[in-house]
Amino acid sequence: MASISRESSAQRWLLTDTETSTEKGDWKITSEDLKLSGEGFSIEQKVLRGGKQEGSKVLTVTSQNGLTIALSPTRGMDLLHVSGHGVRLGWDSPVQEVVNPTYINLESRNGLGWLDGFNEMMVRCGFEWSGHPVTKDGVLYTLHGRAGNTPASKVEVTVDEKAPHEIRIRGLLKEVTFKKAKLEIWTELRYVPGSDSFTVHDVLTNHADYAHDYQIIYHSNFGTPILEKDARFIAPLKSVSPFNDYAKSGLTRWNIYGAPTKDFDEMVFNLAPKADSDSKTVAALINSKGDKGASIEFDIRQLPLLTLWKNTDTLKQGYVTGIEPGTNYAYPVTIEEAQGRVKRLQPGQSAEFALTYSLLKDASAVQKVEQRVKQIQGGDVIAISETPIAKE
Amino acid sequence: MASISRESSAQRWLLTDTETSTEKGDWKITSEDLKLSGEGFSIEQKVLRGGKQEGSKVLTVTSQNGLTIALSPTRGMDLLHVSGHGVRLGWDSPVQEVVNPTYINLESRNGLGWLDGFNEMMVRCGFEWSGHPVTKDGVLYTLHGRAGNTPASKVEVTVDEKAPHEIRIRGLLKEVTFKKAKLEIWTELRYVPGSDSFTVHDVLTNHADYAHDYQIIYHSNFGTPILEKDARFIAPLKSVSPFNDYAKSGLTRWNIYGAPTKDFDEMVFNLAPKADSDSKTVAALINSKGDKGASIEFDIRQLPLLTLWKNTDTLKQGYVTGIEPGTNYAYPVTIEEAQGRVKRLQPGQSAEFALTYSLLKDASAVQKVEQRVKQIQGGDVIAISETPIAKE
Amino acid sequence: MASISRESSAQRWLLTDTETSTEKGDWKITSEDLKLSGEGFSIEQKVLRGGKQEGSKVLTVTSQNGLTIALSPTRGMDLLHVSGHGVRLGWDSPVQEVVNPTYINLESRNGLGWLDGFNEMMVRCGFEWSGHPVTKDGVLYTLHGRAGNTPASKVEVTVDEKAPHEIRIRGLLKEVTFKKAKLEIWTELRYVPGSDSFTVHDVLTNHADYAHDYQIIYHSNFGTPILEKDARFIAPLKSVSPFNDYAKSGLTRWNIYGAPTKDFDEMVFNLAPKADSDSKTVAALINSKGDKGASIEFDIRQLPLLTLWKNTDTLKQGYVTGIEPGTNYAYPVTIEEAQGRVKRLQPGQSAEFALTYSLLKDASAVQKVEQRVKQIQGGDVIAISETPIAKE
Repeated sequence: MASISRESSAQRWLLTDTETSTEKGDWKITSEDLKLSGEGFSIEQKVLRGGKQEGSKVLTVTSQNGLTIALSPTRGMDLLHVSGHGVRLGWDSPVQEVVNPTYINLESRNGLGWLDGFNEMMVRCGFEWSGHPVTKDGVLYTLHGRAGNTPASKVEVTVDEKAPHEIRIRGLLKEVTFKKAKLEIWTELRYVPGSDSFTVHDVLTNHADYAHDYQIIYHSNFGTPILEKDARFIAPLKSVSPFNDYAKSGLTRWNIYGAPTKDFDEMVFNLAPKADSDSKTVAALINSKGDKGASIEFDIRQLPLLTLWKNTDTLKQGYVTGIEPGTNYAYPVTIEEAQGRVKRLQPGQSAEFALTYSLLKDASAVQKVEQRVKQIQGGDVIAISETPIAKE
Repeated sequence: MASISRESSAQRWLLTDTETSTEKGDWKITSEDLKLSGEGFSIEQKVLRGGKQEGSKVLTVTSQNGLTIALSPTRGMDLLHVSGHGVRLGWDSPVQEVVNPTYINLESRNGLGWLDGFNEMMVRCGFEWSGHPVTKDGVLYTLHGRAGNTPASKVEVTVDEKAPHEIRIRGLLKEVTFKKAKLEIWTELRYVPGSDSFTVHDVLTNHADYAHDYQIIYHSNFGTPILEKDARFIAPLKSVSPFNDYAKSGLTRWNIYGAPTKDFDEMVFNLAPKADSDSKTVAALINSKGDKGASIEFDIRQLPLLTLWKNTDTLKQGYVTGIEPGTNYAYPVTIEEAQGRVKRLQPGQSAEFALTYSLLKDASAVQKVEQRVKQIQGGDVIAISETPIAKE
Repeated sequence: MASISRESSAQRWLLTDTETSTEKGDWKITSEDLKLSGEGFSIEQKVLRGGKQEGSKVLTVTSQNGLTIALSPTRGMDLLHVSGHGVRLGWDSPVQEVVNPTYINLESRNGLGWLDGFNEMMVRCGFEWSGHPVTKDGVLYTLHGRAGNTPASKVEVTVDEKAPHEIRIRGLLKEVTFKKAKLEIWTELRYVPGSDSFTVHDVLTNHADYAHDYQIIYHSNFGTPILEKDARFIAPLKSVSPFNDYAKSGLTRWNIYGAPTKDFDEMVFNLAPKADSDSKTVAALINSKGDKGASIEFDIRQLPLLTLWKNTDTLKQGYVTGIEPGTNYAYPVTIEEAQGRVKRLQPGQSAEFALTYSLLKDASAVQKVEQRVKQIQGGDVIAISETPIAKE
């Protein structure tokens, strides 16, 4: 439990570090251990065992009156699930284990190997590419990229010494291939014990001497209890269009969810978010009664596009919706390139992404978000297009 | 060595469990420890180290006067080898390590990566597909499926408190991919210490809300000392046909084995087993003198087809024969589908497979099986076809 | 620290052994522990943690006044880096971790997955194939083969009891696939503490009953401080030709290096080495002042060809040159076959490869190598061809 003080005002623990070959494995601290007053919390890392989760690490922040947040350093610092006030952010995937990437072959099923491990509340798609799989010049660009299956090279936990003792969990992911890429992302989760929100703050840097394209999608996924029949998606928007021909048929009710429905499969919509004068916007999933929800605030200068993935198939198949702020849509990288939505980092350049996730625990919390959406939307009408912008 | 009693009459040990993140690692119990009288036995798990077997687990049942049975939870509960009375069931593969699936890429060599780890006495081929590799719509269906390289998510050992203290080793394999499959199989090995037989009893369940095709082949492999020049394969049969053109040339002696033969490679025959009125049948490999053998009893309602794989190449190349009861033949899944041999499980539906493997230690044991084969065959002639039913 | 004495005159430690399931993990011996007089040394194995290096082993020989040599048993006994007298043999790859092969998919990027782990001073390319990737009959022959990503099945350390206490590190790599290959290589590193040279002595054996083709390239890589503007490559040669059209443009200065140069990418030359009457030759990289260098001595009966890889791109991109003695050039195996440069081992046959690497610490050491190169070259002119011998 030795701490490395970085700043006078915070304690720091290095859980993983490839440079010093550090790996804490099972590890735990509590506010009691640290003799901190205020909202009680604990931060615990466990190494999972058995099956395809052998060796996968899970780091869990538990707060007495706020949220419990679990993420996996082994799986790209992905958020596994969040809960609080009897509400769960996350979903029930048929994949139940926290699959160690050593058991994943991203190329299997013609680039769909990612589906062997997908069960997160939030998985980063990226960073060399982030969309649907495609083969170009013999190279298979696999579904949603490599980020979600990249083990963190460095993981550190920081706790502010001053109340309210903000917790920060930072993880470094390296997407590095000789001659191809040297993208590194410092992921950061910030949480103030007791609160109902947390922030993801990532910095993606191109450490190469050459400019490099990148893509990022924050694939944020919610199932029951928020997702249910007549649950609604809300966000201030400029436009909505169906991802493909199948989604056309759902356009009239694009923002309303059905009950778990056999053979529904998935319906995807491309959204263009509208923001306030500071470029901030918010998207949310609200349950049918309007007394539970989840919201994501983000900045459209960082993440200009939003994909809505409605996967209201049966419960066992994975009843889930994805609210996915991104630099691009989920089409294959070839289409995103052709249509000019792929971003680029110059040598040494960084891009920042900040998202605030909130658990909306009651009607009052929901109403605040609804008001904010209305306020940003203002009098502007959402343009509904019936034509997909691209064909896979 | 803590035991969890499930039934009043048995002791149970949980060796691996992903739900509780349990992994016993090196572990052992003996009948002495348990203060059980009767035939002495031990059950031991070891975690292998080095090379490509790093982290592979082997679970071995040893019985004083009966069999020693080794299986690998890391490799799909496959049976590695069995021995007793100076006879070995199994074979000598050029692959000597118990390869951890983390080192296997099933897609390598255009779908032949399975061959990097193949050395088992019995490996389950399945469950989404089980035959030779084929690419369809860009998806590579790799040789013999994924089952044999799936680490068990749950492993439990049970010992009956009542004599003769039957041992049961159960292992849960999950073949789960979001949107694609949620097949789970509970494998079970049952062994009564001191006996010369053991039973494999598997239950494959489709946990999805959609019907799903499945295939299973019990790829059971025997080399020396049973396999030798003039060793024989026996089984009551309706018909025999060559798998391909090469096998045509071996049709006159399809059930007799040659000595290790350079350039023999492999010759495969498709068999249709004949069963008794309870649908039970038996297939066996008998050595040339008829005083050693191995037999497999199975139920043709569960496993209607039988593949005979004669790989009597040189000793170093792998002198081995496969006796392979299955739901289908070993053709690519595309052919099996087209010819209507692929089975299907409805949502929630299970299929059971029970096979009894016996080590035939002497002429008397061999004769009993020979008699049973004759009895089931009765007066019916085996139809020999010269034409392969399909072309790869 | 138990030692197994194999010969009366040496102590032996078995660090890894799949047959006995041995894995020492973190381990260390020193000349002091062994009560050996003379040049002090230590030999230490560490298991790395974190990121993609989780579980990778590094074995380091440190000598008081001579060299420090680091190799990785997990990555095919590859040499990671060597240093002494303020000079480093090796380079700075954008890939910084010692990537565990469990995280490598050699087939990714259409056969370029090897680049996800490439950062060694010397990596063996082979043994079934060793060159650039190519797909033939649906099979993807991945870049530089599998050897460099094969974990050693056996690792032993030997120290001579007699002065000067030569250290030998032997590692067994198995490239074994049922029906495809049973190639095994015993790699050996020999080092006399205090000296500026070490020897790699490998024996590749075909343990199959069938003849098998093989290829091997010793991909030996050097960056700063030896590689710099106006550094030179020297070797006695029969001929030089450009690998491809791009290399044509660099033919006039094929043996001189430029400073780190943006967009240089890589330029490759095919060399035919000239040897002395004992078939021995030497190739070296010399810095601009001629007071630092690295040389490789080898036998052209074993390694008849030499590839020069000039990758003088920017420092971050990987400023490095490869001096690569081999049985073949780096073209895809299909071209090497067609042009008759692929070697073959009969059943049971072995091929030996001995290379001496020297760190040239000063002008005197450099001059000795220059003289030797001149002596072997004699009056013979190097034939410069402008035409690549093949087109990929």
